[in-house]
Amino acid sequence: MTLTKQQDEAHAGLAGVIAGDSSICLCGAEDESLLYCGYSIEDLAASSSFEEVSWLLLHGELPNKKELEKYKNALNQHKSPSAALIKVLEQIPEHTNPMDMLRTGISFFGNLEKDPEHTDPKELSEKLLVTLSPMMLYWWHFQQNKARIKLNVSAHSIAGTFLELLHGKPPSPMHSQALDVALILYAEHEFNASTFTVRTIASTLSDYFSAIVGGVGALRGSLHGGANEWAMKLIEQCGSPDKAEKTILEMLGQKKLIMGFGHRVYKRGDPRSPIIKKWAKKLAEASGESHLFETAERIEQVMLKEKKLFPNLDFYSAVVFHCLGIPTDLFTPIFVLARTAGWSAHYQEQHTHNKLIRPLSHYIGPTHRPYIPLEKRS
Amino acid sequence: MTLTKQQDEAHAGLAGVIAGDSSICLCGAEDESLLYCGYSIEDLAASSSFEEVSWLLLHGELPNKKELEKYKNALNQHKSPSAALIKVLEQIPEHTNPMDMLRTGISFFGNLEKDPEHTDPKELSEKLLVTLSPMMLYWWHFQQNKARIKLNVSAHSIAGTFLELLHGKPPSPMHSQALDVALILYAEHEFNASTFTVRTIASTLSDYFSAIVGGVGALRGSLHGGANEWAMKLIEQCGSPDKAEKTILEMLGQKKLIMGFGHRVYKRGDPRSPIIKKWAKKLAEASGESHLFETAERIEQVMLKEKKLFPNLDFYSAVVFHCLGIPTDLFTPIFVLARTAGWSAHYQEQHTHNKLIRPLSHYIGPTHRPYIPLEKRS
Repeated sequence: MTLTKQQDEAHAGLAGVIAGDSSICLCGAEDESLLYCGYSIEDLAASSSFEEVSWLLLHGELPNKKELEKYKNALNQHKSPSAALIKVLEQIPEHTNPMDMLRTGISFFGNLEKDPEHTDPKELSEKLLVTLSPMMLYWWHFQQNKARIKLNVSAHSIAGTFLELLHGKPPSPMHSQALDVALILYAEHEFNASTFTVRTIASTLSDYFSAIVGGVGALRGSLHGGANEWAMKLIEQCGSPDKAEKTILEMLGQKKLIMGFGHRVYKRGDPRSPIIKKWAKKLAEASGESHLFETAERIEQVMLKEKKLFPNLDFYSAVVFHCLGIPTDLFTPIFVLARTAGWSAHYQEQHTHNKLIRPLSHYIGPTHRPYIPLEKRS
Repeated sequence: MTLTKQQDEAHAGLAGVIAGDSSICLCGAEDESLLYCGYSIEDLAASSSFEEVSWLLLHGELPNKKELEKYKNALNQHKSPSAALIKVLEQIPEHTNPMDMLRTGISFFGNLEKDPEHTDPKELSEKLLVTLSPMMLYWWHFQQNKARIKLNVSAHSIAGTFLELLHGKPPSPMHSQALDVALILYAEHEFNASTFTVRTIASTLSDYFSAIVGGVGALRGSLHGGANEWAMKLIEQCGSPDKAEKTILEMLGQKKLIMGFGHRVYKRGDPRSPIIKKWAKKLAEASGESHLFETAERIEQVMLKEKKLFPNLDFYSAVVFHCLGIPTDLFTPIFVLARTAGWSAHYQEQHTHNKLIRPLSHYIGPTHRPYIPLEKRS
């Protein structure tokens, strides 16, 4: 409590404060690169799969062929949610935000585990990763289409399973790969607000599901995971490049916040953005929605010219998800699907050298007020 | 990323780091006092009620007679959980940790709210505060005693409601007051791990229930809310003062951690401990379990002599809860009941001058590893 007011202000939002050691992700270094366990995001997006990346984050090393095969088999073992989970999902109303549905669904899924505190988080994360798509899409179809969908799929990847359950048919290889790349890019990002929430919960020695549920709650906010949904609404609302230019200039004139731009960590550009932008272009052209990509690109140009802000991962991801036929309300739940890999790795790492995360506040209220009995209060 | 290794280590667990301004709670100041909105914990425990304190934390001022009456009436309006919530609670297995049951129950309760993002957190906290006891005790009796209890009570306080639902009859005034005091003492405690979790989630502009559910998850850990359950098991296991002395000395010799002692914020003593200790003595004597109090007191003496550590609030609270006939597994859920008042105040305060809470990590892993294709990995 001895920091001066000036020092205190520097800590608002913990901006620039180092909160612990980690060997999972490097971002915001001098060269503005993004590394998962030392591997560049460009290499991983070009050559690996989400399953490979998820294994990498949990183990610190890329899997060999046998390990990857075993992991994928494990991920295929737990595909159907239990009858109890289905019952709970059916109780969650249609008006519920899908992120809040996931919060309850994951929490209840954890309730079914016999001893989550003494089970290897690697095992729990496998079970959860493979349950997330069936969980969200069962509920989605039940509430939106009043249909109890079948949960068996032919797809052999998490990305493919999601798209097959959403559309009721196997996705094209291009669509499956596009979502796979998005999942890789969203899988991990150092001490962002949701991951830091996961670590704070883990630091009390709480269980895996409590930590993940906290991460979902943090990701739900419009300043975090909600940005891609907001970006999509903006792009759709603009509809054309010229309209976009006019709209953005007007919004900037009114000092409105444009989501999907800038990042607290990257000052010269989000290295994930060029990767997802290529996919956005490819998918928009293939699905005859080039105007959406062009609209997005014009917004990017205006933001760079006017505010010197670059798009972050959320901005062009919105176009990718839209072209994959994913309803906008499910954009942030997909972020959960991907980030569960990173959260699980951070939960595990926090427990290896744990110290309770417990900062202080700077008190600015009144002190030592005399207590007035109820009868004498005006 | 420019802090040296030495500075970085100082930030592990954010110990001593000020993470923001607050006017809710002052603790750990020079005089080792604890103030809620400027009022001393001694005055509040002696003269107010938990409802009054909960109002104080949310409004920054003590309520007058009319305001308190209105608040208590509001708290009495929402007493019965909905049929949907009951259905979900019945799905949660007997083996589930009651904290994990609350995590799901509160999350689902939030799912039933039409628009939690645009509803005043004061209103949501009222609804939640009054639902917590029915929620946990319905499930508790359903699983432990295979009984669907009636949820109407004659009690007019949150403490009384909890005890009446637990025991199936109205509590004595002494018992009701003892729990009320415990709820006051547990209501708020600055930027502890669970409250800081609530604020981190709130800082993404996420909704009230996501933040509270995160708080529950953090509180569940044995380094945080779980300490009082652990303390009770130790006191019961010792059973007598002499046995306690022997056991504690043995445990210290084996360098085992004794829960319920010391505090990161208080260096010379937790001001809540003397207050709850008096109640522990009174209740233990009244219920003919003086040996438990004496056992606890001997543990206190040994810890002070051997480790210069004082008991924190959790230690004697364990004796109080036990003497009120509360099963040990419900000690931490009671902590939730109390702390929901403080969490709600912090959620609200975080949103008044919000800044995203997003620290950095100190990267200690490998950098720029060449990517090896799957086929070539050994």
